[in-house]
Amino acid sequence: MNNEDSKKISKTYIREEGMGDLWNVWYSELHNGQSGLTVKIDKIVESTTSEFQRIDVLETKDFGKMLVLYGSLMVCDNDNNAYNEMLAHVPMFVHPAPKEVLIIGGGDCGTLTEILKHPTVTRCTMCEIDKQVVEVSKRHFPRLTKGLSDSRANLIFSDGKKFINETTELFDIILLDLSDPIGPAADLFQKEFHQRVYDRLTDDGIMVAQTESPFYNKETVTALYQNLRQIFPIVRMYTCFMPIYPSCYWSFAFCSKKYDPIADFDQDRHSRQELDTQYYNDEIHRGAFALPQFVKKLL
Amino acid sequence: MNNEDSKKISKTYIREEGMGDLWNVWYSELHNGQSGLTVKIDKIVESTTSEFQRIDVLETKDFGKMLVLYGSLMVCDNDNNAYNEMLAHVPMFVHPAPKEVLIIGGGDCGTLTEILKHPTVTRCTMCEIDKQVVEVSKRHFPRLTKGLSDSRANLIFSDGKKFINETTELFDIILLDLSDPIGPAADLFQKEFHQRVYDRLTDDGIMVAQTESPFYNKETVTALYQNLRQIFPIVRMYTCFMPIYPSCYWSFAFCSKKYDPIADFDQDRHSRQELDTQYYNDEIHRGAFALPQFVKKLL
Repeated sequence: MNNEDSKKISKTYIREEGMGDLWNVWYSELHNGQSGLTVKIDKIVESTTSEFQRIDVLETKDFGKMLVLYGSLMVCDNDNNAYNEMLAHVPMFVHPAPKEVLIIGGGDCGTLTEILKHPTVTRCTMCEIDKQVVEVSKRHFPRLTKGLSDSRANLIFSDGKKFINETTELFDIILLDLSDPIGPAADLFQKEFHQRVYDRLTDDGIMVAQTESPFYNKETVTALYQNLRQIFPIVRMYTCFMPIYPSCYWSFAFCSKKYDPIADFDQDRHSRQELDTQYYNDEIHRGAFALPQFVKKLL
Repeated sequence: MNNEDSKKISKTYIREEGMGDLWNVWYSELHNGQSGLTVKIDKIVESTTSEFQRIDVLETKDFGKMLVLYGSLMVCDNDNNAYNEMLAHVPMFVHPAPKEVLIIGGGDCGTLTEILKHPTVTRCTMCEIDKQVVEVSKRHFPRLTKGLSDSRANLIFSDGKKFINETTELFDIILLDLSDPIGPAADLFQKEFHQRVYDRLTDDGIMVAQTESPFYNKETVTALYQNLRQIFPIVRMYTCFMPIYPSCYWSFAFCSKKYDPIADFDQDRHSRQELDTQYYNDEIHRGAFALPQFVKKLL
């Protein structure tokens, strides 16, 4: 790639430092323009704009290939798969027999692939608004998109809000695998939407939503949990280390009609199943619900 | 500060982007020059060179004041005090009656201040090589250096290696509160030094050492734990989220002659003591020993 090509990349979040023959491009994801992760880009593999958002695939040394949606880093080759595994396996090992699973969002297919590791699942529906995210992911992230070849995968390309309002089906587990509450996913962080998700769960159903960084997004976190508590009888936060997300510390809301995430954790099934994971395990399942004092204060 | 002054700051890790009246300085701490935290600097508060290292105090919006030693970010106002609290309180609530505590390093005094929150302590000795780090910290970090006014604080300005080789005293707890294994602290990550520390512990003593990032410093972590296991009968890793350290995910080695960090955790004393903390609590004490799969593989 020459300097001319690199100029086509948006200046909003990819900074060039070119001097003569040097070509230096850094991806920086800053919180309020003040601090955050910066990563040196070896190559811009693909850069496109779909009907909904800008999509970039960037090649780096430390993280391998990275997928960027709407200016937010979503997944990469070397993030230990923490986000996808924690979103998927925590509710899967709490619900005693999860058969019907719905993912809203999740276009990179990493969560779908984790869900389909469970033999109890008869169908995993994924409702993603942007078909191009799935196509780009298929081209560049074979490990994440492995689940697509599973006959239990059921892809629907539609707005998650529209889908959840119109469907009459019930699900054992619904996962909100969304990008940040700006851009295409903004509405899916609202209370009205969470109430509709509650209504589409079976009587012992579980919803898990990604709920941003407890370090950077304090007000968003507090507001989200206040809303969720008005809908679900059981709401518990858990966290994981995620090296490419803002502050590298990420939170999830475990929202349940009946099951407790620790008391009802199915240790036997976990031991029998011998899941192949990079991050999740039984100790992490329990340990992830321990929250530091500064996080407890937000809730 | 004008552009002329800012130019005195080393270019190795503070990057200027000046154009006309604009003055833009960013602090970036990169792993192998490839990725890491970048923070916008509002003001360079103090920048000096001691006998041992370069010392900077930088003012930022997201993190408040930050202390940088030898090009590594050590502490700041808004890091939730995670590192200091996890280093200090985990062994303090496992040992049944810690009286004599030794800190090697720890010049910012944050760990000293946490240790002295415990009424069991009769003396906390801190052996720091660089007096100027303590002086700079006193000027800019009053919360961290509060412990200095406690009569149980015993400061020694000396090389940690020399001190541990020469002292005949025994300690209940020894904490290795060191900067990275480059620069002045390099020797203190070696097996010979750990053996000497073992020898200066009482029969039921505990050593805790900071052991770098399990994400970025994989080989260092593996080598360190191999060494520690040859010396201590009980060696367990625990981790914390630390927003200003490389990868924001940090590890500690709990090394003990007798006590198990979870089985021997003194829940009653913790409940009675009502510690004022930003990060540490009893759930975190237990949860911090749960390690993700990719970390278990290193050990």
